[in-house]
Amino acid sequence: MPSVREVARAIGARVLGDEHTEIRGIASIASATSGDLVFIEDEKRLQEALESRAAAVLTEKAPQLSAHKPLLIVARPRLAFARAAEILKPGSKNTEGRGIHPSVVVLPTAQVAETATVDPWTFVGDRAAIGHRTWIGAGCVIGEGVSIGEDCKIYPRVTIYPGTRIGNRAIVHAGAVLGSDGFGYVRDPENGRHVKFPQIGTLEIEDDVEIGANTAIDRGALEVTRIGRGTKIDNLVHIGHNCQIGENVILAAQVGFSGSVVVENNAVIGGQVGVGEHARIQEGVLLGGQAGVLPKKVLRGKGVAFWGTPAKPLREYLKSLAALAKLGRRE
Amino acid sequence: MPSVREVARAIGARVLGDEHTEIRGIASIASATSGDLVFIEDEKRLQEALESRAAAVLTEKAPQLSAHKPLLIVARPRLAFARAAEILKPGSKNTEGRGIHPSVVVLPTAQVAETATVDPWTFVGDRAAIGHRTWIGAGCVIGEGVSIGEDCKIYPRVTIYPGTRIGNRAIVHAGAVLGSDGFGYVRDPENGRHVKFPQIGTLEIEDDVEIGANTAIDRGALEVTRIGRGTKIDNLVHIGHNCQIGENVILAAQVGFSGSVVVENNAVIGGQVGVGEHARIQEGVLLGGQAGVLPKKVLRGKGVAFWGTPAKPLREYLKSLAALAKLGRRE
Amino acid sequence: MPSVREVARAIGARVLGDEHTEIRGIASIASATSGDLVFIEDEKRLQEALESRAAAVLTEKAPQLSAHKPLLIVARPRLAFARAAEILKPGSKNTEGRGIHPSVVVLPTAQVAETATVDPWTFVGDRAAIGHRTWIGAGCVIGEGVSIGEDCKIYPRVTIYPGTRIGNRAIVHAGAVLGSDGFGYVRDPENGRHVKFPQIGTLEIEDDVEIGANTAIDRGALEVTRIGRGTKIDNLVHIGHNCQIGENVILAAQVGFSGSVVVENNAVIGGQVGVGEHARIQEGVLLGGQAGVLPKKVLRGKGVAFWGTPAKPLREYLKSLAALAKLGRRE
Repeated sequence: MPSVREVARAIGARVLGDEHTEIRGIASIASATSGDLVFIEDEKRLQEALESRAAAVLTEKAPQLSAHKPLLIVARPRLAFARAAEILKPGSKNTEGRGIHPSVVVLPTAQVAETATVDPWTFVGDRAAIGHRTWIGAGCVIGEGVSIGEDCKIYPRVTIYPGTRIGNRAIVHAGAVLGSDGFGYVRDPENGRHVKFPQIGTLEIEDDVEIGANTAIDRGALEVTRIGRGTKIDNLVHIGHNCQIGENVILAAQVGFSGSVVVENNAVIGGQVGVGEHARIQEGVLLGGQAGVLPKKVLRGKGVAFWGTPAKPLREYLKSLAALAKLGRRE
Repeated sequence: MPSVREVARAIGARVLGDEHTEIRGIASIASATSGDLVFIEDEKRLQEALESRAAAVLTEKAPQLSAHKPLLIVARPRLAFARAAEILKPGSKNTEGRGIHPSVVVLPTAQVAETATVDPWTFVGDRAAIGHRTWIGAGCVIGEGVSIGEDCKIYPRVTIYPGTRIGNRAIVHAGAVLGSDGFGYVRDPENGRHVKFPQIGTLEIEDDVEIGANTAIDRGALEVTRIGRGTKIDNLVHIGHNCQIGENVILAAQVGFSGSVVVENNAVIGGQVGVGEHARIQEGVLLGGQAGVLPKKVLRGKGVAFWGTPAKPLREYLKSLAALAKLGRRE
Repeated sequence: MPSVREVARAIGARVLGDEHTEIRGIASIASATSGDLVFIEDEKRLQEALESRAAAVLTEKAPQLSAHKPLLIVARPRLAFARAAEILKPGSKNTEGRGIHPSVVVLPTAQVAETATVDPWTFVGDRAAIGHRTWIGAGCVIGEGVSIGEDCKIYPRVTIYPGTRIGNRAIVHAGAVLGSDGFGYVRDPENGRHVKFPQIGTLEIEDDVEIGANTAIDRGALEVTRIGRGTKIDNLVHIGHNCQIGENVILAAQVGFSGSVVVENNAVIGGQVGVGEHARIQEGVLLGGQAGVLPKKVLRGKGVAFWGTPAKPLREYLKSLAALAKLGRRE
């Protein structure tokens, strides 16, 4: 168990009080038991934190009066808490290198690193590669030629279609489907039938991406669908073929992207947003929940928020909503 | 096969006609074959029901004239039909206590009741507990320390993350993911990266909850996500971390809740509704399909309907829509 | 490897240039390597296509000047390209008739065609039938009495509930759930609890249907849910009980249908559209993304577009939006 001093050093905090107190884990103030580290972002909650069962408190400002628990003083307590959690949270057995369960089918040309763990009833196809310390949960299907980097966590029942490439430290939650066929057809005017357009491109997922439960990401039709480094995707999101998602993008739950959507770095997309094909969300744009973006539309402006369907700059949209409400009252 | 008399007694109905007719199953009027019980809610359909191949008819009012089929008279025919179905519907083999299929992996510290059924290729983790007469379908993953009560039906390919607790008589449909990580990050301003906030809370699902296919419910970040007794959740719903859903709540398909949403008892949430974090839907509120609720918003009023984004009282919203339509026509 | 002449004959194209050039595959202009067939829909891209590494170009019009690559001239290049892909795309090993993997559980009364392929850890229930040349991926659950036709591709981890019937040449992507219980309850006014209404109908999926990843389609309550011939359904779509979907319908990602919705032939439904119960979308109607259709509403008109919630004819809705924007600017 690390001491307050060790945790403080790891997260760059200054200590007030007993540096030798041992820290066992992390918790919220309400759920803390002895040994837990808690954090506050609002000084008003300091008293509550001190009265809790927590062993130590992360906070931005040192209090006027002395505290009977050790305090870790740091500029961004929430960020520091997240970092402390990396050291302190209950050890996962996932990455302990349990090896390959005897029930797993690994085709002869696949390469699984010695330190990887593959749980029961997972299929690893021809020429697939799984990197060091990566964990593949039970019941996954790793298609032909799929490449998964190091230190990844692939939760149970994830299906990865052939040819998909995943970087290092990716986390993919249960039930996600990666690299499925895009939705593309050509209507035959003679009989009204939809002829399947070839969906033979690939999907590339860069380092440090996290993908939520039951999310589906299609591979490119002829080209590549790409998810940039550090992008985080919530549950039940749909990403169509040929989309190009930048780095450190946030996609909240149930977002849906048609084909060939471009999202630049650092954009933040709210829950249930829908984006039409070939639209472009430029760097740092914020899209409010349930907003809808028309095909080919370009939204621009770092830190500029858009909302509504069709999405407008937030200020403009709020004015319209206010005008509409006033109008309704007059009826 | 039970007789009309036995069915009537079980559902509290009065019988007109032959009490000894045997009832084999339930059906709609259109699909009924001999031996089936059907129901009508509208007296106008009585003639049609009598002319069908059904063996007996559930109805609210006794007809003026005599009928050539036995009638079961009951105050709420639809409710009575649903109850009769419990006795009459095609027997499920699920709960017959087939035991544990030889392919199943049950870790040594797990406890599976003798009368439970566990189908092929299901994984039962350390210290997991599965109650009496519960059925676990093929290809499920029951994580470490998960507890599942009695008489539950867990359909195939459900993933339950470690620590999740499920009460009695729960039904979970195929592909659902329970207890996955919430979507929480802290942005590091120095490099723009999103550091994962710890997601180490749990998920508690109380008795008599039903959960639809491919629905995803996240566990709490530091606390508990809770789904109250008797709540029914449709397909492809997303419930974020720390949500507190009350009892007998209805969540239609594709609803999405951000983190820390509170829904009180008996609320009814329409399909594709989205709710922002820390919003509160008070007891008995009705939310129309596709409505959107802003973060921290409180909606109140038993039986009061809200609609639109941002959600307004239905009456007010309809007035705005009417005004807007009028305005459009004037353009 | 087929020659330009053979490909041209198969798709009904006229050849300009060397008919003996061999064609290895298909590609986009940007990704083409030697041996690939590419297509253009816009004459302006011809030069680019000719300068690419492609072996031959599909185009509508013969150019004025001579080209140094063989050209395949055809009325609809995109459609012709899709058809050429059927012959040329990387051969799938799926339908090679690998037979039944030894880990598969096939109950004794099930019938699997000799030429079918069933991958590891798939369960085939009592009286299920799987047709010739059909591929069932790893980890699927084929319930009791399910019937799957010929030449189908069922990707990994699909769950098919008992009694579902699927025609020929269907494609079902990973994680889809077919035939799950509908969402139907009867509220007991005495205690506020929701009693499950019987969900004992079936699901019928006709020939040539494609179903996206993690989509969920419920079976009928007492009747049949039907998906018509040639209809294409994208990822994460929800279709409730008793829906009747016509032929050659397009349902984009994340569409949600309540119970008993009727969609007639050739309708096109945009992403994230929600439709209330018993609504009817008549033949050839187009519904814009995120539109919402009220319960029991009828939308009519071949080729007529609707948008918004509640959905209005597009022209009318755009006028309202314009009026609203003007109003907002005046505030």
